[in-house]
Amino acid sequence: MTATVYGYWRSSATWRVRLALLLKGIPFKVIPVHLVHNEQLGTDHLKRNPMGQVPAVHIDGQMLTQSVAIMEYLEETRPNPALLPTDPTGRASVRQAVEVINSGIQPLQNLATLRRLQSEYGVERPHWKPWAAHYIHNGFQALEALVAPNAGKYLWKDKITFADICLTPQVYNAHRFGVDMNDFPTLNRTAISAGELHEFRAAHPDQQPDAQR
Amino acid sequence: MTATVYGYWRSSATWRVRLALLLKGIPFKVIPVHLVHNEQLGTDHLKRNPMGQVPAVHIDGQMLTQSVAIMEYLEETRPNPALLPTDPTGRASVRQAVEVINSGIQPLQNLATLRRLQSEYGVERPHWKPWAAHYIHNGFQALEALVAPNAGKYLWKDKITFADICLTPQVYNAHRFGVDMNDFPTLNRTAISAGELHEFRAAHPDQQPDAQR
Repeated sequence: MTATVYGYWRSSATWRVRLALLLKGIPFKVIPVHLVHNEQLGTDHLKRNPMGQVPAVHIDGQMLTQSVAIMEYLEETRPNPALLPTDPTGRASVRQAVEVINSGIQPLQNLATLRRLQSEYGVERPHWKPWAAHYIHNGFQALEALVAPNAGKYLWKDKITFADICLTPQVYNAHRFGVDMNDFPTLNRTAISAGELHEFRAAHPDQQPDAQR
Repeated sequence: MTATVYGYWRSSATWRVRLALLLKGIPFKVIPVHLVHNEQLGTDHLKRNPMGQVPAVHIDGQMLTQSVAIMEYLEETRPNPALLPTDPTGRASVRQAVEVINSGIQPLQNLATLRRLQSEYGVERPHWKPWAAHYIHNGFQALEALVAPNAGKYLWKDKITFADICLTPQVYNAHRFGVDMNDFPTLNRTAISAGELHEFRAAHPDQQPDAQR
């Protein structure tokens, strides 16, 4: 059973879903939805995802949206390999890290939000960077404090979890927006470790069919 | 075993956690953290939650943050009454609704973000409303389409779930920012139904010890 990912090479949420599918060994094909050309707001894509966001994933005969909901679904239907710890405290710790990124950082610095600063208040592109960098820097400062006690090779001990899946695209954006990852030694170290895994190499935006260099 | 909620009467995320605790019958006490006075950024609270947000919840000998992670923890450790459906597709549908609100609407219209529009770009308070109303309106439009096929008395059939818990505070903000709930008949109807439950009445901001009228 092959899944279909409607997404964009550089989208953080699409990247998370690619990682989850690859780590669980679920075959999938990718149908690009070009964010810069606003294809996510076209009639075809709004049928897949009324939020006008990527990704939308067709799997098990249904269309799913929202990357965190998709990861939880994959974990429940394909439990091996597990991407959450087994104990509730460990799971809470991982989901806490996920939400710091998913609700505390990513929405505030994504392309749609930056574009809206321009359309609503006339903030031009050269002035987007401090807005975005602020959320990444402050969020990573908090995340570093939250994860440091439990981190091992990865964010949660030596196991790859949802937390590493969410961290990786956010670190990519940190570099784009000029945030110095040396300020966050645990995040930096674990993201580099995760990046060496073949699934993380395969999920990288540059490896996607719609990548533009 | 009594939980302690460090939160703010009007905070959406605090409200979600109050609802989850009340619905599961877990006793808790509330320690107010005053957002308008920036107590969330004080040393005491940053120890509880390095993100400088509310709520932080002390339960089972540990401090938890991030409302969605807390709800998932409560569901795993106190499964009855269940606040998620039992089947993976139903659970994905509820979590999708949760994330539309939790990552797609709430962070973009909360007090911290509106204040930052002012500090970063000089957007004064009278100009906040269209920014906030846009995210609520667009998010609710998508949510209405996503939930309508499965809605019953509540957002997911006739069962109270995480989705209703997240919807209720967001509807309160919709009213504050002048969004017309008649545009979203399913959301409006189910939020009113949920609001009639005694747990929802007890969790309302106006019933909190730190409420200001």
